[in-house]
Amino acid sequence: MKHVVIIGGGFAGINAARELGNKQDVKVTLIDRKNYHLFQPLLYQVAMSALGAGDIAEPLRNMLSRYNNITVFKGVVENIDKDQRIVMTDFGQLSYDYLILACGVKHHYFGNEQWEEYAPGLKTIAQATEIRRRVMEAYEAAERTDDPVARKKLLTFVIVGGGPTGVELAGSIGEMSRHTLSKFYRNIDPKLTRIFIVEAAPRILGSFTPDLASRATRALEQLGVQIWTSSMVTKVDGDGVQIGNERIESSTVLWAAGVRAVGLGRKMGVEIDRSGRVIVEEDLSVPGYPEIFVGGDQAHFAHHTDYPLPGMAPVALQQGRSIGRNIMLDLKGRERKPFRYRDKGQMATIGRNKAIVEVGRLKFDGAPAWLTWLLVHIYYLTTFKHRMLVLMQWGWSYFTFGHGARLIVNKEWRFYPEKRPCPPCEMQDES
Amino acid sequence: MKHVVIIGGGFAGINAARELGNKQDVKVTLIDRKNYHLFQPLLYQVAMSALGAGDIAEPLRNMLSRYNNITVFKGVVENIDKDQRIVMTDFGQLSYDYLILACGVKHHYFGNEQWEEYAPGLKTIAQATEIRRRVMEAYEAAERTDDPVARKKLLTFVIVGGGPTGVELAGSIGEMSRHTLSKFYRNIDPKLTRIFIVEAAPRILGSFTPDLASRATRALEQLGVQIWTSSMVTKVDGDGVQIGNERIESSTVLWAAGVRAVGLGRKMGVEIDRSGRVIVEEDLSVPGYPEIFVGGDQAHFAHHTDYPLPGMAPVALQQGRSIGRNIMLDLKGRERKPFRYRDKGQMATIGRNKAIVEVGRLKFDGAPAWLTWLLVHIYYLTTFKHRMLVLMQWGWSYFTFGHGARLIVNKEWRFYPEKRPCPPCEMQDES
Repeated sequence: MKHVVIIGGGFAGINAARELGNKQDVKVTLIDRKNYHLFQPLLYQVAMSALGAGDIAEPLRNMLSRYNNITVFKGVVENIDKDQRIVMTDFGQLSYDYLILACGVKHHYFGNEQWEEYAPGLKTIAQATEIRRRVMEAYEAAERTDDPVARKKLLTFVIVGGGPTGVELAGSIGEMSRHTLSKFYRNIDPKLTRIFIVEAAPRILGSFTPDLASRATRALEQLGVQIWTSSMVTKVDGDGVQIGNERIESSTVLWAAGVRAVGLGRKMGVEIDRSGRVIVEEDLSVPGYPEIFVGGDQAHFAHHTDYPLPGMAPVALQQGRSIGRNIMLDLKGRERKPFRYRDKGQMATIGRNKAIVEVGRLKFDGAPAWLTWLLVHIYYLTTFKHRMLVLMQWGWSYFTFGHGARLIVNKEWRFYPEKRPCPPCEMQDES
Repeated sequence: MKHVVIIGGGFAGINAARELGNKQDVKVTLIDRKNYHLFQPLLYQVAMSALGAGDIAEPLRNMLSRYNNITVFKGVVENIDKDQRIVMTDFGQLSYDYLILACGVKHHYFGNEQWEEYAPGLKTIAQATEIRRRVMEAYEAAERTDDPVARKKLLTFVIVGGGPTGVELAGSIGEMSRHTLSKFYRNIDPKLTRIFIVEAAPRILGSFTPDLASRATRALEQLGVQIWTSSMVTKVDGDGVQIGNERIESSTVLWAAGVRAVGLGRKMGVEIDRSGRVIVEEDLSVPGYPEIFVGGDQAHFAHHTDYPLPGMAPVALQQGRSIGRNIMLDLKGRERKPFRYRDKGQMATIGRNKAIVEVGRLKFDGAPAWLTWLLVHIYYLTTFKHRMLVLMQWGWSYFTFGHGARLIVNKEWRFYPEKRPCPPCEMQDES
């Protein structure tokens, strides 16, 4: 009986687990810091009040309970001894025959980690809730104040980074301020909301063709989003952002600029790239350690392409499956198969009836692209949620311009001063 | 143009506002610390993972946007000058012609406020999320540990207080542990979960007839809930509860024992009862101050009954309406009508097909009571949510034993050390 330890219950981890589920001669332990799998591509919709957290997250135990050979632990991995083949966790040690690293990435501030408190990133449900709180709180404060300058600052939103996440956040705020919120306030006109995308590169959506990115730019502008390209943020503070000699005063800055793999790769002493991702072989194993695999955002895989595969859900999903299958091939004494990414294309949504889709040579935008985006996401979401009703509700509120989940939930932290979990930050980060 | 200020957007406040909405010669300002109205009777279902927060909360602005004469502010009321007729808030002063106090209650630990961190109450979404986190975290920790004594303690839940909320919490944990969770864990048997209701009075559900309360007791016992009556909690700490010479070791203690009106009444210098509730006239106004009304849980109304009306949603709803109508009668120069509570009965749910209902002389339990409970709550919920799809989903998961929202969302508080709202506790409490 071989023991496979999987660290991380994201797209890579969960799909590797499924490949190994209920298979003979193998037992699986999956460890995650959270007790749920998160459908990350729609996380920005939680931040923007269009969906509740429960709509895009599912307890890992629900997803894996049908596999009798899989045990799930909610815990934190502190280190890995790759020679002794031991995983050290906050609840004890586990030895493994195979190890799958799928811990993903977190936000990266390029050496300016102090910016994080002023400009949260969007990787977890807690961050999405915090972004929602800040955005909605800004409108509430603007409604209360009489000072026009303070009001302008409150109604200014800066998104640092013009990749798909930045575009989706900016588009949502544009949509919400132009269409949803206008009838709800008496003292302010939410249509006056200023939204900026600040991007260091010469254009936004660098992974798409220039033509599609340009169409996305126009669609964003129609929603009132101002796009500043070739603009490197030099400072973020509680009052706004500095871009060289220019400055935007803003109460709400969101970070969608950079990510970095979590630190386990570095800690283990394997070869990593500049972003902390583990450089892997063609079969996604670590050079010299064929029993250790890395999948998803944490893997640097650059075997059939000029650049490493991007950190996208389809890549992670396919890598997880490939790892699971290769372990099964090992156990049957057969040869492993190298991983090949089957490119399903990429897409980004900007707002209602506004999206861009690129599949191979096929490129389109507008309503057809938006519909494609919607159907693809509903399809993938149902593969793990099985909740058509929620999806119908979501589709409905999307069509009716609803952002009904605009709840500001304060952290009432003063209530729970001691029992609150506050593990050493390093530990929390590293798994 | 008369100005009505309403403090609190609960059942009383929102219904008073609706009565005054779009009426001539009156403008309304509603102030609440939160930006949403909460359907409190189902809050325990959020704590127990059966519903998401968004399912039972609706932004106040959504509910009131159709009334052009109503302005909503998210803010904290710090004090009231009842002679100058001024409301002092954290965003400035407002003068009023009429004032409606509807701030509700918060939990009360009978002078042992230090127990709160070990035994949270259930009044807000943040508290519900915290209770959910603690309950689910206990199962996760039990799954991880090898120590049978630690495991027993982790699988022990103590609910202090045997009123409807305590019964609903205990019943839900019983239901969840006996029916939902069993297939999800490998190392523990959730059916071994011990659940205690600790009640100081000689029986639980004191507001119901002894016969119905006794049937509820049996229904709870069938779900594995142990009921300790005549048991006064003398100490709560991080390891359990002390009841005189007896002790229960438990990792998770929940408080459903006592409430107290928020402090504004006391601060204003009007007559209050032992629980801080403002003693009101027959028309719900404050003696000597006919322009100040108090409604909902914050009001002590004891004109046609031997005891003050209980803190229940139907009472608050009817009182809010009555206040709004009396203000309109004032404006028309007509005589006010005294408030009469139309008793719609009371009910409590214990679990699937288990509930008790008491309407006048009619008393029943079991499946018919549960169905009645379900229909009544769906009816009232739709009056403000208009979201049949969510309700269908809820009914569905209830029928299929689903507790799908079992997400543990940690407060990632280290991220936001400065911008996090931490108003002076006194202020936060008092409105």
